[in-house]
Amino acid sequence: MRMGKKRVMLPVTDVDLTTVKYDPGEIEAPHTTGFWLKLFVKLVEMPLLGYLILGHLKKQNKMNEMLRDTVIPEPPMFRPEFPPQEPEPGVVLLEEDGKSEDQVDSAVRCLPQYDPDSYHSSESSPFRYWKIRDFAYSYRQRLTTPSSVAEHVICLIEEFSHKKPPTPLLISFDPEDVRKQAAASTQRFEEGKPLSILDGIFVAIKDDIDCYPHSSNGATTWLHEVRKVKKDAVSVSRLRSCGAILVGKANMHELGMGTTGVNPNYGTARNPHDLERYTGGSSSGPAAIVASGICSAALGTDGGGSVRIPSSLCGVVGLKTTYGRTDIRGSICDAGTVEIVGPIASSVEDIILVYAAILGSSPSDKISLRPSVPCLPDLSSRENSSILGSLRFGKYTEWFNDVFSPDISNKCEDALNMFSETHGCQVLEIVIPELDEMRTAHVVSIGSEAATSLSPDLQDGKGGRLTLDSRINFALFSSFSASDYVAAQRLRRRLMYYHMEIFKNVDVIVTPTTGMTAPIIPKSALKLGESNMKVTGNLMRFIIAANLLGLPAISVPVGYDKQGLPIGLQIIGRPWGEATILRLAAAFEGLRVETKQPASYFDILKRN
Amino acid sequence: MRMGKKRVMLPVTDVDLTTVKYDPGEIEAPHTTGFWLKLFVKLVEMPLLGYLILGHLKKQNKMNEMLRDTVIPEPPMFRPEFPPQEPEPGVVLLEEDGKSEDQVDSAVRCLPQYDPDSYHSSESSPFRYWKIRDFAYSYRQRLTTPSSVAEHVICLIEEFSHKKPPTPLLISFDPEDVRKQAAASTQRFEEGKPLSILDGIFVAIKDDIDCYPHSSNGATTWLHEVRKVKKDAVSVSRLRSCGAILVGKANMHELGMGTTGVNPNYGTARNPHDLERYTGGSSSGPAAIVASGICSAALGTDGGGSVRIPSSLCGVVGLKTTYGRTDIRGSICDAGTVEIVGPIASSVEDIILVYAAILGSSPSDKISLRPSVPCLPDLSSRENSSILGSLRFGKYTEWFNDVFSPDISNKCEDALNMFSETHGCQVLEIVIPELDEMRTAHVVSIGSEAATSLSPDLQDGKGGRLTLDSRINFALFSSFSASDYVAAQRLRRRLMYYHMEIFKNVDVIVTPTTGMTAPIIPKSALKLGESNMKVTGNLMRFIIAANLLGLPAISVPVGYDKQGLPIGLQIIGRPWGEATILRLAAAFEGLRVETKQPASYFDILKRN
Repeated sequence: MRMGKKRVMLPVTDVDLTTVKYDPGEIEAPHTTGFWLKLFVKLVEMPLLGYLILGHLKKQNKMNEMLRDTVIPEPPMFRPEFPPQEPEPGVVLLEEDGKSEDQVDSAVRCLPQYDPDSYHSSESSPFRYWKIRDFAYSYRQRLTTPSSVAEHVICLIEEFSHKKPPTPLLISFDPEDVRKQAAASTQRFEEGKPLSILDGIFVAIKDDIDCYPHSSNGATTWLHEVRKVKKDAVSVSRLRSCGAILVGKANMHELGMGTTGVNPNYGTARNPHDLERYTGGSSSGPAAIVASGICSAALGTDGGGSVRIPSSLCGVVGLKTTYGRTDIRGSICDAGTVEIVGPIASSVEDIILVYAAILGSSPSDKISLRPSVPCLPDLSSRENSSILGSLRFGKYTEWFNDVFSPDISNKCEDALNMFSETHGCQVLEIVIPELDEMRTAHVVSIGSEAATSLSPDLQDGKGGRLTLDSRINFALFSSFSASDYVAAQRLRRRLMYYHMEIFKNVDVIVTPTTGMTAPIIPKSALKLGESNMKVTGNLMRFIIAANLLGLPAISVPVGYDKQGLPIGLQIIGRPWGEATILRLAAAFEGLRVETKQPASYFDILKRN
Repeated sequence: MRMGKKRVMLPVTDVDLTTVKYDPGEIEAPHTTGFWLKLFVKLVEMPLLGYLILGHLKKQNKMNEMLRDTVIPEPPMFRPEFPPQEPEPGVVLLEEDGKSEDQVDSAVRCLPQYDPDSYHSSESSPFRYWKIRDFAYSYRQRLTTPSSVAEHVICLIEEFSHKKPPTPLLISFDPEDVRKQAAASTQRFEEGKPLSILDGIFVAIKDDIDCYPHSSNGATTWLHEVRKVKKDAVSVSRLRSCGAILVGKANMHELGMGTTGVNPNYGTARNPHDLERYTGGSSSGPAAIVASGICSAALGTDGGGSVRIPSSLCGVVGLKTTYGRTDIRGSICDAGTVEIVGPIASSVEDIILVYAAILGSSPSDKISLRPSVPCLPDLSSRENSSILGSLRFGKYTEWFNDVFSPDISNKCEDALNMFSETHGCQVLEIVIPELDEMRTAHVVSIGSEAATSLSPDLQDGKGGRLTLDSRINFALFSSFSASDYVAAQRLRRRLMYYHMEIFKNVDVIVTPTTGMTAPIIPKSALKLGESNMKVTGNLMRFIIAANLLGLPAISVPVGYDKQGLPIGLQIIGRPWGEATILRLAAAFEGLRVETKQPASYFDILKRN
């Protein structure tokens, strides 16, 4: 198929082999020997002329047509490689290819007993968010209905979008669609047949993950013109089959190419803890909508901290799954080698429930990555506390302390100490070499892969329709050479080796999630965006290993800095080690001393 | 370690973690919003200025230092991915990590009974080469000794090198070293303790595979200055432990970056069938030394036909193994994703013996590629002929017939027909889409990976020390963008899919090995080389799938064109399907009607 200069290849599984025509495709290049060969070499080695001659040759041989102007629907033929891993202790094994509803049911059984009084009896105790099980209880006890909650949700979302300046949490939103889903859920409760504990739970979907009938724009103004959404992404369809109510497409940093969440196209989402500050990104809307109490959970994508950074800055929990542990098909970044789909929620137990729903590798990832059997941490079992005591934390103190404000490392350190006192675990000092190389290998990998996906669409002038900071990024990413990319993949193998060596001695690596708390939004950034690599560096300092190496990682809130801004602790696990980091995150959450209601918080259940 | 601008990283396993220092490594870039951001975008998007600004930013952030000026010893973190394969029928399974000598012993038992009269009784019958078992028999019967053969080999090799113009078969050669190895072998025979059937067998090693104490230059004039050889490559050390006599480093196309074998640095090896013609390449010396009867076998590398093309043009057999089936550590292209080490020999049975010696994946390939159990085709078993009859050939006729002279497709067709008549197998018509994309994906993959390896060494002016056609190639390879490379890896996944679909219906794909027979060496090419993409296109037409997709493939001679130049048939197998293609190649060899003594042939055993 051709659209102007751009060529769109059919997915390989749809190619009709009976229509294939043999094309002898002769190679066009001058035949030279002797003097002419010498001259030709001189010419191609000249800075500008050489570039033009080679460009001409590549064009004659259709190389640019094939590589730069063509949409190739398949991901590259490589994946992070994990050495075989020991199974984790104290887990509930799930069936391979099990139904989402059954997985969610298993997850419920993994949680400690639900006590309906835990919330209502604690009017005087510290702030806590409503959990999914609180909604589930309220629906089952007929204290409220999904339809009733839906009206509050709709009202709040519209309120955010109509502020001046608008700070939309969702950038594609259809109240009627939400009402319809809520009505269906309400009816299921009336019939006593909810689909799962997630039935009637409000979930937002980041704008780079397909959620029918919404378009997926990745927060651009034009992506829907070239990329039609015909069905839900796999992860979204799994949530839908559990009865979750999908409220719409959450705001994000354009194309995920930034970590603040600034968005001149649709307006910038504000941090619920301080409306003058960024949410962090790129999953800005997902984190903000959860942190403000409007949705129980959201799905984000994380290719460079995009789930964990905004979760940390907004004081909620964000899970970056092992590469390939969740099925990324139906996301705009589904051809990358560092991205995953992961949940954001206000508590670890809600993360576990949503994770259980979306857990499941794509068929091709099952072959190439050989994920270990899907499993969940059994937090209800008696062994839980003895397992917690047996785990070894790796901490690279110099790195851990390299933060913008010591509040961050101090709070994370306090949390570790408290954990150690309570559960008696070991904290071992580790060293990670080549952190600088890790950052470079990551930006070259994710940048080159993003540029490959965008390149066919940005050929015919659409580049100018990107926001300014995306244009700088795209120019940078397009400047990487093939050798840069290959060198980055070599560095990647080195860093994988170092991490696997470290994981011989420790079970998890702990760091602050971010090197700074939520930055202030400069007034001048709202309209045109901003480019601030210092902020990017601080926000991304600790998140890269999980993306570059495919490791699972979770951000869990551990307190606030002096300005009252949330601080997250990051726990990085072994490949396929989600159960261990979820178990630890739940324990850290249980030990938490400070909790604070966000400035912009809406008590959805209480309104009913 | 630093050498001028170039930085050399220690192998990851040698890094001393106690010396690692934390480096905060701040990101250097301007913080811009509003007008300044707009201006900055305009500047970086300008053709030349943008290039300079981004170059400056990348330099400030040490990106070029890390990616372009640094030797990174590890391969990229990806590998071809094969879906699981059914085991092949009629094979002898080998022990995992077995000793080379034991593997070779198993191989001998897989061959039909040896008949010492088969050669000697056939003075009147068509030409055939001495086989490894002929040498083994002669040594064991004390008809000759390795030392005695060594003198003839030494004499011939020196003769070739001193011709005018010199047409060296070996480019690093130490007669005393050969004599020493031969004496040790002779002594083992005297003591009645040969190490294996390969003891006393003369083998040449391509100049890009380490063979101590020779340096590895890859036919450049300077590689030894930056790359020290301290021990044998794994494949070479395996041959040595079987008693093979390693005669030295065989000539090749510089750095393997060409398919003719032209070599202005050391002189161009000549085709034994017509001394005015190329051997093909890049393994020119290995094919020529085997075809002229001087060595029983040679090791080559094949990243783009480099074993199969010269084997086909010189009328001998060449095996490209499945990616990762043989251990490539200790070759100068050991960080690539398309290259393998494979044997060249004059008969399929000799290929099997040498293949058995070198068979064995590297430890990391065992994890990432999960090779099926190593095995050999049992040609001595009674089932052999029924297995042959059960195999299905895939043939893409339009492609098969796209050759420079119809002699080639006709001879290959004849061989297929004869095979079909004798063994009753099926030939099924297949179609392979996107052959043009396959070629592009291959040149971008191998070129970018080669450029990555060479880049740190070519920074300080060594580029000018490459031959002219290598310089053109290096300029082209360096012009590929990271997006080109990623797009190529996406095309690669598509082509892998198509081939796996095809292999659901057929057991092997058959093609001519090359689209032309040995081309004439232009006089003007001897001194400065040549660049002739038409010839390259013809020579590489059929060989790319095996490299890009990691499939095993073998070239077996099936006759001659009207000028008496050899024609090869290529059999491409399923991943890990060496046993099947070796079985088929042996059968084709057995049906061969035409054999012809090369113009330049030396009857080494008869001289004794």
